[in-house]
Amino acid sequence: MADTSPVGLHRVLAPAGALPQAAERLDASPEIGVDELRIRVERLNLDAASFRQLATKHGGDGDAVRREVLDIVATRGKMQNPVTGSGGMLARVVDEVGPKSTLGLRVGARVATLVSLSLTPLQITDGLAGWDGQSEQVPAEGHAILFGRSIAARLPDDLPSALAMAVMDVCGAPALTERVVRGYPAGARVAVIGGAGKSGSMSLAAARRAGARTVGVVPVEHEAALLREVGLADSVALADARDPVALSAAVEQALGGAADVTVVCVDVPGCEHGAVLSTADGGTVIFFSMATSFSAAALGAEGLAADVTMLIGNGYLPGHAELAMDLLRTVPAVRALFERRLSAETG
Amino acid sequence: MADTSPVGLHRVLAPAGALPQAAERLDASPEIGVDELRIRVERLNLDAASFRQLATKHGGDGDAVRREVLDIVATRGKMQNPVTGSGGMLARVVDEVGPKSTLGLRVGARVATLVSLSLTPLQITDGLAGWDGQSEQVPAEGHAILFGRSIAARLPDDLPSALAMAVMDVCGAPALTERVVRGYPAGARVAVIGGAGKSGSMSLAAARRAGARTVGVVPVEHEAALLREVGLADSVALADARDPVALSAAVEQALGGAADVTVVCVDVPGCEHGAVLSTADGGTVIFFSMATSFSAAALGAEGLAADVTMLIGNGYLPGHAELAMDLLRTVPAVRALFERRLSAETG
Repeated sequence: MADTSPVGLHRVLAPAGALPQAAERLDASPEIGVDELRIRVERLNLDAASFRQLATKHGGDGDAVRREVLDIVATRGKMQNPVTGSGGMLARVVDEVGPKSTLGLRVGARVATLVSLSLTPLQITDGLAGWDGQSEQVPAEGHAILFGRSIAARLPDDLPSALAMAVMDVCGAPALTERVVRGYPAGARVAVIGGAGKSGSMSLAAARRAGARTVGVVPVEHEAALLREVGLADSVALADARDPVALSAAVEQALGGAADVTVVCVDVPGCEHGAVLSTADGGTVIFFSMATSFSAAALGAEGLAADVTMLIGNGYLPGHAELAMDLLRTVPAVRALFERRLSAETG
Repeated sequence: MADTSPVGLHRVLAPAGALPQAAERLDASPEIGVDELRIRVERLNLDAASFRQLATKHGGDGDAVRREVLDIVATRGKMQNPVTGSGGMLARVVDEVGPKSTLGLRVGARVATLVSLSLTPLQITDGLAGWDGQSEQVPAEGHAILFGRSIAARLPDDLPSALAMAVMDVCGAPALTERVVRGYPAGARVAVIGGAGKSGSMSLAAARRAGARTVGVVPVEHEAALLREVGLADSVALADARDPVALSAAVEQALGGAADVTVVCVDVPGCEHGAVLSTADGGTVIFFSMATSFSAAALGAEGLAADVTMLIGNGYLPGHAELAMDLLRTVPAVRALFERRLSAETG
């Protein structure tokens, strides 16, 4: 076994010097280095922004979506949507562990990767025959490689793996939301844009546990009804996040003022200005959506003379997977929303 | 005079509901609303990323660059580069003030706008005849409109207006850098990537004043020599910011460890991973470059399992223009760098 870079530089085929996430092509060959680990893939979970882009591009033609995913993986050695730059995650059985791997996982363990597919060497061997191209949940056979510094978590035995994966996929959002909300006084006003989705519902639960008053903002009535029914947010508001004036009016009405913390969890472009306008001076906007435009956010805040802190949502915080699994186990509304969503996706 | 929106919604021609920064087209007609203000333009200062994109696209052909700038302004009613999304700023004489304007400026005052050109209604009337297309500094005749909630600052009488504008153009960077550095203990390690540029040199000065130990990172030896000569940083390092391994090694060597705060001021794509890799766990990366990719930053930090806070550099903080002018006046090295840069641009 060869000596290898803990961040996977030795797997980068092009361009030279890039990290795996920025690389155009990775070497996904199954032979592992001393600190690497090979996983036998059973399921991929595509990033929501990536799946939406593919589904829209192909007008919902599942066969075309499947062919493009196969083509991306074969060409790039990883599942990274060239348009959105995003990937997803995967599960599940550890196949081989390098002698110097520090990930603490044994052969046969059921795991989910907590680093993005966009930097994970991947080969697919079954042509995705079990996938209809209509859902982010992709049954798949093949293998993937984890580096020395990758993050993977054991899948819990007491939960269906699709449920655990869906939770782990967004576990950065509640962890960062909790950290930011705890930086404000108790009773802080928190708006979660896209509050009925996976990262949104987790963020609502985390904000409430951190002592916030919350509003979940959703674009359509059936999501509002769902959110009201499970009672995850202190209030629920209906607004199009791409309409800055409508969004900020809805947030202010629900919270009795602009938000101290606004969490953006909707995977559509054009939500930056509404989020800034919904946030009070001295407040914080956390952007988790991969559809966020850096320049739109930066110039939007400047143009509105808004003294708000804007965070790029980092998918990694220490303990993030444990925190998310704990929310799933202790907040019935979160589990209810995730289970409905999963049954809708696979049903 | 018609009643108008303080954020300029009434000037948006398309698409409906967008804020001016996100709009495709603005109404730049010279008649002002009650809280608006019209400026007679004498000079534009293009955003560095925007000018670089245009100059590169046209292979340095100044006439072609000029034609494209004219075309953008005529088509969009504002100077917003469609590729980078960024704009710049402008100066200078206030022409007409609406009776309800709260900007505190009188007719005849020499001012610079502190909101981006990317949201400022603008008409150019001289065909940019005085500009050779070779510099970010654009002599121009025409008019621009400021909204009720815009930010403009009076140009100081004791400084050349090109110098004052160049400083104000980047005044968000030192203000946010100072705020972030003050959140760390005295002696914090601060790396400024692109330390010899406008926002970079200002950020170095602000970090040092906030008690930090600093390194300025530059890509070429003549910038390193310049930075060493003026003595703005505690140390100077040479590295390509697009090479994550080389950049982080240079930062660690200069500071004796990874940075607590990394400030990204280079207007080239692909610096996200290097910045994250250069920053210690618990540290903060501030991205000021408009060439920053949101998804590359978000997925890069996750992929490296880096517990770093990533900020989208907001161009506005209360008091930012005053802070920057104060640095220019009290730190001779800052003034020296700015004057050299301006004379190089116009010489």
